[in-house]
Amino acid sequence: MENYNISTSEIIEVLGTIAFAISGTFTAMQRKLDPFGVLIIAFVTAIGGGTVRDLLIGDTPVAWMRDMQTCLIILFTALATMFFKTHVQKMKITLFLFDSLGLGLFTMVGLLKGIAFGLNPGICIALGTITGCFGGIIRDTLLNTIPLVFRREIYATACIFGGLLYFLLVQLNVESVVAKLSVVAFIFILRIVAVRFKLSLPKFEY
Amino acid sequence: MENYNISTSEIIEVLGTIAFAISGTFTAMQRKLDPFGVLIIAFVTAIGGGTVRDLLIGDTPVAWMRDMQTCLIILFTALATMFFKTHVQKMKITLFLFDSLGLGLFTMVGLLKGIAFGLNPGICIALGTITGCFGGIIRDTLLNTIPLVFRREIYATACIFGGLLYFLLVQLNVESVVAKLSVVAFIFILRIVAVRFKLSLPKFEY
Amino acid sequence: MENYNISTSEIIEVLGTIAFAISGTFTAMQRKLDPFGVLIIAFVTAIGGGTVRDLLIGDTPVAWMRDMQTCLIILFTALATMFFKTHVQKMKITLFLFDSLGLGLFTMVGLLKGIAFGLNPGICIALGTITGCFGGIIRDTLLNTIPLVFRREIYATACIFGGLLYFLLVQLNVESVVAKLSVVAFIFILRIVAVRFKLSLPKFEY
Repeated sequence: MENYNISTSEIIEVLGTIAFAISGTFTAMQRKLDPFGVLIIAFVTAIGGGTVRDLLIGDTPVAWMRDMQTCLIILFTALATMFFKTHVQKMKITLFLFDSLGLGLFTMVGLLKGIAFGLNPGICIALGTITGCFGGIIRDTLLNTIPLVFRREIYATACIFGGLLYFLLVQLNVESVVAKLSVVAFIFILRIVAVRFKLSLPKFEY
Repeated sequence: MENYNISTSEIIEVLGTIAFAISGTFTAMQRKLDPFGVLIIAFVTAIGGGTVRDLLIGDTPVAWMRDMQTCLIILFTALATMFFKTHVQKMKITLFLFDSLGLGLFTMVGLLKGIAFGLNPGICIALGTITGCFGGIIRDTLLNTIPLVFRREIYATACIFGGLLYFLLVQLNVESVVAKLSVVAFIFILRIVAVRFKLSLPKFEY
Repeated sequence: MENYNISTSEIIEVLGTIAFAISGTFTAMQRKLDPFGVLIIAFVTAIGGGTVRDLLIGDTPVAWMRDMQTCLIILFTALATMFFKTHVQKMKITLFLFDSLGLGLFTMVGLLKGIAFGLNPGICIALGTITGCFGGIIRDTLLNTIPLVFRREIYATACIFGGLLYFLLVQLNVESVVAKLSVVAFIFILRIVAVRFKLSLPKFEY
């Protein structure tokens, strides 16, 4: 962070970390955990997806262990969220918005990492989906609530469509920064629309 | 798959993937999941054991991420299983048979991979057992049923005996293909006999 | 083990493995598992922390797979514990003492491994805490009890303070062996004091 020469990818990763740390802090505070428990949940939510991603592709030590930056970002985000909590009225909606934002950002991070490792596009989309979804899955499992991803509304599906959109935009020679931000916005908006209008996958009878 | 020069090991791995994908699809359909959920469970069941195996020995990116072949095999197997489902009468028995077949096949795959990595025979048997059992453990945990492996009848024990048999056959200079297929058949049949006659480990009083 | 030239670190690791194998065996026997189940729980408790640690830093094959030594130590420890069980009167206290001892020993092992991998001190403390806590978390999760780490009394916090103490002692040029043993003793005693006097983190109202 010593100069302004930071890539879009790095900004997306930092923003995703902040978004998921906030969503973890809110969820843990809703469940009345003690401050140490809140920090643990904030931490696990923010690093879960990236850790599973790095383990699967063998990029170790996993990302958050390479320096203190990620840990400090999560620590300050969680403390600030706890501090400003009383000013947040509609916690459930705020939580949902940050979870959706983190989902879009981390899916993009996972996609880019898969591409950087030379993986097949289909595998890159799977990796993006895993990166986006796992932080929330671990958070919800530890707090004993049904993971958002297993509820009816579109969740993992949003990541998959986001991944397809990215490869489409790249094929169409859309500028890299525009393509990345479009995918993040697409997943974020698709989640909001899905929950607002209770969209879900069609059920087949069998 | 472009020619007929495929090794026995590769055939065993593909057949194991198909067997576990079928067992995952059946289990998920029994629990009335929606089609996307069925695909997820089929996928996780078929790749779970191999993923844990590759993570433990550090052979990354894990096997299913290296190309699309495994993903496509699972996708087609799950779709075909869903399609033909109405023709399958005794689902519980079919499910059990495919789970047992996958157990034998994947235990053999794990054993061979341990040997290829130059691990100690005892560790190879542990790796084979992990490869065979973990797909089913993850499947049953996600679907909230008690994993087959923790029920009374011989399960992990069948993998361990299968591993011992393989090293015995190799010592006796039995031809490689014969030894491999014997171990797969041994584990498959041992499971059927164990469940049919309710065999379990002796209980000690303490 | 062929000569007496063994480092303090290796002794700490072996003692930690024995302590956690005993704690796993006791916990599983309390839950009336069959002998095979007891062995599995003893094994998972003793290798859980080190396995997660090695996966995160990418030191694979993970420690217990490199030779049979760890597996044999766990096997003999579990069998001996089962055999001598009838002589142990206060199982709950014995279990707690061995869990606390293992916690101190494995935290030290994780710290040293992080330092050997050139990680940031803050990350080393996280790695030590993970190494110390994960065996017990997996043990308690498999046996369906609330993990000790999530109960009120100081647990993970003891590992964090132990890690801080180690870096302080190193700064003060305390001899290496003395520093290591001091940290193990510190965590062990802190746990006992915490449980004896029901110490826990302060609860904030929010």
